[in-house]
Amino acid sequence: MRVEFINPFISATLDVFKTMLGCTLVRGPLSLKREHTPAHEVSGLIGLSGKCRGMIVVSLGRETAIRAAEIMLGARPDEVDRDVMDAIGELTNMIAGAAKTQLEEYRLTIGLPTVICGKNQVITFPSETQPLAIPFDSEIGPVSVQVGLVEMLVPVA
Amino acid sequence: MRVEFINPFISATLDVFKTMLGCTLVRGPLSLKREHTPAHEVSGLIGLSGKCRGMIVVSLGRETAIRAAEIMLGARPDEVDRDVMDAIGELTNMIAGAAKTQLEEYRLTIGLPTVICGKNQVITFPSETQPLAIPFDSEIGPVSVQVGLVEMLVPVA
Repeated sequence: MRVEFINPFISATLDVFKTMLGCTLVRGPLSLKREHTPAHEVSGLIGLSGKCRGMIVVSLGRETAIRAAEIMLGARPDEVDRDVMDAIGELTNMIAGAAKTQLEEYRLTIGLPTVICGKNQVITFPSETQPLAIPFDSEIGPVSVQVGLVEMLVPVA
Repeated sequence: MRVEFINPFISATLDVFKTMLGCTLVRGPLSLKREHTPAHEVSGLIGLSGKCRGMIVVSLGRETAIRAAEIMLGARPDEVDRDVMDAIGELTNMIAGAAKTQLEEYRLTIGLPTVICGKNQVITFPSETQPLAIPFDSEIGPVSVQVGLVEMLVPVA
C-alpha cells in the first residue's frame, strides 16, 4: 500500500478523537497488519471506493468504546449496546470522511459504517492490500486503526 | 430499505453459490435484522457506495466456510485459515459484483471484501439502513446474507 495513503488516516484519527472526545491520541509505530492479528473487541468498519478501493477499521476495547460513547452521549452506557455501537460507527464515519477530503485526487466515496463486536475476532483484509495497522494510546485506552487500500488500475466511471 | 434493493442480492447469492460451489441454496423468510443478532462465525463484508451506500455481509458457520473453501480450492483446509478467509472474501466480492450489475441505475462501486472471524460476534448496521437478513440453507450448511443500503439524497459526483 502506498505510504501517502496512510497519513490522511492518521491525521483524521487524531483530529476526530481530539474534536469529538477531547482525547489526545499518542501514535505508536506503524506495522504491516499480519494475518490473524486479533483486533480489539469493538470495531467500526467502512468501505472506500473510487480510484482506490479498500476498507478502514477502527478498533477499540470494550471499556474504551463505552468511555468514548459516554463522552459523546453525556451518559455512561452500562454495556456495549446499540448506542455504543452507533457512537463507534459515527467515529469511524468521521475518520473516513476526514481522510477522504485529504485524498481528493482519488475521488473516494465512502460506504456506511458497520460495527462488529465480539471476543477474539480476527479481521482479514484481501491479500493484495497489504493493510497497515496504526496503534494509538490515549487516556481512555488503546485504539487501533487498520487501513487496506489498493489503487484501481482501470479508472472508475 | 427499499425492497427492490434486496432481490438483486438474493439472485446474486443463489447464482454465485451455484456457479462457484455447485451448491443450491434454499431461501428462508426475509426478516428485518434485529439489533445484536449474532452472525455466523465467519463473515465477509463489503461496502457499497454510489447513489446509495451501505454494506453487505455474507456469514457462514465455521464448518460451512471450510467446506466452501474446500470446494473452491480442491483441498480441505484444517481450520479457518488465510485461505478460507480469502475464499469467503472472494465469494462476498462476487455476490456484491453480481448484485451491482443488476442495480446499474444506482451506479454502485464496491469496496474490497474484509473477512471477520470470531465467536459470538454481533454485526450492527447504522440505524437508518433498516438492514434485511436473508437466511439460506444448503447441503454445506446455513448461510446468512445481510444487506443494509440507504439511498443518498444528494447525488454523488
